Amino acid sequence: MNRFGLLCTRCAARLPFRYSDMKCTCGGTLLVDYDVEQIGRSFSKETVSKRYPSMWRYRELLPLTQDEAIVSLGEGWTPLLRMHGMEKKLPLKQLWVKREEQNPTGSFKSRGFSAAVSLLKEAGAARAAVPSNGNAASALAAYAARAGIPAYVFIPQDCPPLIVQECIQYGASTYLVDGLIHDAGAIIEEGKHEQGWVNVGTLKEAGRVEGKKTMGLELAEQLGWKFPDVIIYPTGGGSGIVGMWKAYKELKRLGWIDGDMPRFVCVQEEGCQPIVDALSAANHTAGEEHRTAPSPTGMRVPQPPDLELLLAIVKESGGTSIAVSRSDIQDASYSLGSLGVSASPEGSATWAGLTALCDSGWIRPEDTVTLFNTSHHMKYTDVRLSKQPPLIRTYADFLLHSKNL
Amino acid sequence: MNRFGLLCTRCAARLPFRYSDMKCTCGGTLLVDYDVEQIGRSFSKETVSKRYPSMWRYRELLPLTQDEAIVSLGEGWTPLLRMHGMEKKLPLKQLWVKREEQNPTGSFKSRGFSAAVSLLKEAGAARAAVPSNGNAASALAAYAARAGIPAYVFIPQDCPPLIVQECIQYGASTYLVDGLIHDAGAIIEEGKHEQGWVNVGTLKEAGRVEGKKTMGLELAEQLGWKFPDVIIYPTGGGSGIVGMWKAYKELKRLGWIDGDMPRFVCVQEEGCQPIVDALSAANHTAGEEHRTAPSPTGMRVPQPPDLELLLAIVKESGGTSIAVSRSDIQDASYSLGSLGVSASPEGSATWAGLTALCDSGWIRPEDTVTLFNTSHHMKYTDVRLSKQPPLIRTYADFLLHSKNL
Repeated sequence: MNRFGLLCTRCAARLPFRYSDMKCTCGGTLLVDYDVEQIGRSFSKETVSKRYPSMWRYRELLPLTQDEAIVSLGEGWTPLLRMHGMEKKLPLKQLWVKREEQNPTGSFKSRGFSAAVSLLKEAGAARAAVPSNGNAASALAAYAARAGIPAYVFIPQDCPPLIVQECIQYGASTYLVDGLIHDAGAIIEEGKHEQGWVNVGTLKEAGRVEGKKTMGLELAEQLGWKFPDVIIYPTGGGSGIVGMWKAYKELKRLGWIDGDMPRFVCVQEEGCQPIVDALSAANHTAGEEHRTAPSPTGMRVPQPPDLELLLAIVKESGGTSIAVSRSDIQDASYSLGSLGVSASPEGSATWAGLTALCDSGWIRPEDTVTLFNTSHHMKYTDVRLSKQPPLIRTYADFLLHSKNL
Repeated sequence: MNRFGLLCTRCAARLPFRYSDMKCTCGGTLLVDYDVEQIGRSFSKETVSKRYPSMWRYRELLPLTQDEAIVSLGEGWTPLLRMHGMEKKLPLKQLWVKREEQNPTGSFKSRGFSAAVSLLKEAGAARAAVPSNGNAASALAAYAARAGIPAYVFIPQDCPPLIVQECIQYGASTYLVDGLIHDAGAIIEEGKHEQGWVNVGTLKEAGRVEGKKTMGLELAEQLGWKFPDVIIYPTGGGSGIVGMWKAYKELKRLGWIDGDMPRFVCVQEEGCQPIVDALSAANHTAGEEHRTAPSPTGMRVPQPPDLELLLAIVKESGGTSIAVSRSDIQDASYSLGSLGVSASPEGSATWAGLTALCDSGWIRPEDTVTLFNTSHHMKYTDVRLSKQPPLIRTYADFLLHSKNL
């Protein structure tokens, strides 16, 4: 066998590697499967520790044949920030924030698209297309630009304008869609043969899950080759959850880490909570229906491409899913801001989820918890300021204003 | 002598270390001066190479007494991106972009404020204030929030709203000033005793230059402990130029690198070009006056705090200064975008400067050049899209629009 092939997550069929069309005949999702035993003979924690800090330090666990095909913009090895003050308050053994917004395109999507576009380049793909709530679109736009591959991005029309502008800036053919992300996906599926598009949507090709996997590898390495007890992750299509779960399976097969997998918590926004709803239904405790209109963030994915797989991972890990409200997210963004961290709505949602799960006792004081801040706050910033700062000309003006406060 | 003290850049007076009030009685700027011989006995390239990739890996060359005082949000060790395609086009031996926008506050200012706020924390300072074109304000806001120190930021009223919102988000007392950055500075100077503010403005305290210095240290390490031939840097107050020059002096004193210092190029925007003007005057070749209204970017500093020092560094290094137009900057931002790099106006200005200096022959094909992209493009994004993408509902809509292109 080659260093890697494909394995169906539903029927366990094994197939030779291909970079796109990840649906098995049984309907399950195909994921890259490595010959971990072979890899483990020459790949060790020590090897990794000496390499340059980027997601490509885990090269052996990424499905590329030729190094020359790597399309990199400086992705990965993002900071893991400890929040000592909050540990005492909640309390928690350890609380960490993984700052994924410090990637080249301002979001965690850089990782998946570095891997995916590298595969496109290796395969000589002519054109790439993606349906996206925004950050996947701008990441495809950037990496495709770097690789010289034309990119077509399809985004719901209420996507924050800054992210739309990002796609334009990178030169992508940019389309706003009168609908949601699955409507955008349908357009690509209909046109892909005629247009020669490779659909780089969630779970449609081999690279994105593998790239996202490096978030999990990195987190384990940054914690001294340990798993945290709980990972709280803002979940839309869920390729990050699939990727990190896969990362930890591989680390266990490599024998690099023993012990329990982290409990994965999927955070969603009330009004678009398919994972929460499905888990509640399975438990026969379906709660109230929250059908407020969800915000246009990366979490707004009403039809995850493989909900069954996500549910299996969350359950197997002993995890859960929680929906938080738009106002909880807003409050959380100021809470994180007041601690010096600029968090996107998605990252803020993990904070809101954390406080709720600490309150309910699901997260315990002896837990080590990692939150994922997946994107920059500013991508979602409304240009209308949340309050108008005073306009002054002199120190006397300052005094006047501060007295009036 | 202690591990560090202060040295006047004008009269060479030596003083004991203090963290604020960096003006010598002679009027020169005081900078931190290290006992490099003592430090070099236990601090080596090998020591550094084994440390965590952050700006604090150069701990011995940062002026903090207690490690516990370090205020960190995950700053430094930003990617250095090679631009192979452009090397062939220009041509150049090597072209690199240092992606400083991948810092915690979306700009290079994180470094200076990590160091400066650490010093404030060590000294027990009660309140900090800064005059800023925006990114220094948001960096102070973030690091002060992390340290629990109240921050007061004073910004020209035409600062991009996203950056103003960032300061609010981090909880800083935010003031818009009817004037330019030096007017903001005057307000702080007038009020600092009454308000108990430490002025963290450019060259007003010891930390920011030292933090910025790590850009230079990192660049040298990432190039395999070599200097590039040319550094092109968008220059406002110029503490980055002072910091990198100081970094390279220290590396030479440590014996870690031999050979010529890089030629420093200060890029400014036409209409606010005090360094360009001063160098032209000194050469008795004063060109045309360009007095268009400069954009509200970090380069708009009509009165650099120590112009004399900047000029001395540029001249000593064999460097130069160049002013580029607003439309050159705009074009350069799309050029970089089409290569997958999101560049702020300041970063784009270095690209415009590069192409001009290659055209004029000042930069030669055998040169290795590094550009500094100091901030995220999106901080300056106008929410009015540069073009309105088509709105579609179906693949048929897509076909209709693509035919009309």
